[in-house]
Amino acid sequence: MKAERNIRLNLAYDGTAYHGWQIQEGPPTIQGILRSAIQKITGEQVNLVGSGRTDAGTHARRLVANFFTCSRIPPAQLVRALNSSLPRDVRVLSARRVHAGFHARHSALSKVYRYQIYRGPVLPPHLAREHCHYPYPIDVPRMQEAAKRFVGEHDFASFAAGTPEKNTIRRVFRCELKSAGRRLIFTVEGDGFLHHMVRNMVGTLLEMGRGRMSLREFQALFRNRDRTLAGFTAPAQGLILLKVRY
Amino acid sequence: MKAERNIRLNLAYDGTAYHGWQIQEGPPTIQGILRSAIQKITGEQVNLVGSGRTDAGTHARRLVANFFTCSRIPPAQLVRALNSSLPRDVRVLSARRVHAGFHARHSALSKVYRYQIYRGPVLPPHLAREHCHYPYPIDVPRMQEAAKRFVGEHDFASFAAGTPEKNTIRRVFRCELKSAGRRLIFTVEGDGFLHHMVRNMVGTLLEMGRGRMSLREFQALFRNRDRTLAGFTAPAQGLILLKVRY
Repeated sequence: MKAERNIRLNLAYDGTAYHGWQIQEGPPTIQGILRSAIQKITGEQVNLVGSGRTDAGTHARRLVANFFTCSRIPPAQLVRALNSSLPRDVRVLSARRVHAGFHARHSALSKVYRYQIYRGPVLPPHLAREHCHYPYPIDVPRMQEAAKRFVGEHDFASFAAGTPEKNTIRRVFRCELKSAGRRLIFTVEGDGFLHHMVRNMVGTLLEMGRGRMSLREFQALFRNRDRTLAGFTAPAQGLILLKVRY
Repeated sequence: MKAERNIRLNLAYDGTAYHGWQIQEGPPTIQGILRSAIQKITGEQVNLVGSGRTDAGTHARRLVANFFTCSRIPPAQLVRALNSSLPRDVRVLSARRVHAGFHARHSALSKVYRYQIYRGPVLPPHLAREHCHYPYPIDVPRMQEAAKRFVGEHDFASFAAGTPEKNTIRRVFRCELKSAGRRLIFTVEGDGFLHHMVRNMVGTLLEMGRGRMSLREFQALFRNRDRTLAGFTAPAQGLILLKVRY
């Protein structure tokens, strides 16, 4: 029996047409189409591990995945073969052999997400796929002040969708909101994110921006562990996984 | 009979799904869907004038159009009504009443086009709709040197598709090629452009970059008026009409 090799893939995708990363019955997912493409090339049904789940309609500039294979196809050739088989909105940016202990999810040290908002009255078509349209008056400095408060170790239960996981403590390394013309760019890096956490952080900042929440109420969200007290879930299309650090 | 008003529209679109500006039988065009939207709102079959034809699959950040109407709908309301009726990849950015002599095509003083090229080995999905993928080694300074030579008044017959128009003399006010990471951004402003002219200019620069054409041969293109001696027609999706000046 041939020794298995551990292959790491760096992926990018426009998630508009997909139901997120995780394979499921029915709607197309990134994991599903990638796994099929790998099977087509290697003949193997691999266990494809992703750096984490992603929501339907969200995007990735560099998501990391790994799988074990007996195939001896050189990584550069694998990249070309996979990209020939995949739709244009999903690309394998690179592939390389890594040590057997590498695990795309468990080995991740941090993830960087970006959320993009367009504030002008009409959303230009070239920004439509990756921006949330929010043409309402907002107090950006107030949102920036609140964004800073996300940094550090906090209980993010108020920002988690559905029944939160047992451990809802997460560490945010950096969090900033930048204004660039009519765009607002929110960037957050953390050791892990709960389901819908980034989108709920953004929705909460927007509520702050509209003056619907005080800074005191905002601060209390880390203590009261109540999803209903935080802001709305910002739409999926504004969210981009920028990178995963190992 | 009510006096007709001349309405100017600023438009933006992602042209991926469209067969260019000009209305035709069958495939959807920008002029076609916009004219239908105007009819739906005003009840009138207007003569919708665009700043110029655009190729199938090309994009616009700001194309200008005008039409005469008896409708008294305020321009801001017209923008909202049209955008409610149009697909998301075509947007009316603004509308205003202009003097009766304004003609979107005849009144135009210049047009600015951009052509975008991505040079990396794998085209990232978020750039795929608006970039031409050209992952081959090219001599960029050589292309930049050639790009400068487009400036001025020249006979562009060698760069015109099909049977060229009678007058193939055009004036290029500026023309530059900028390198930005793995992207190449070509920008050209001129008083008018022949069919496929910008795409043929870009294809010719790429031939220069590959070392397949000398600067002497390049210069001769303005004299020999022979389409077969210039470069290939660069793909449509990299071309963007940036603005029209009046």
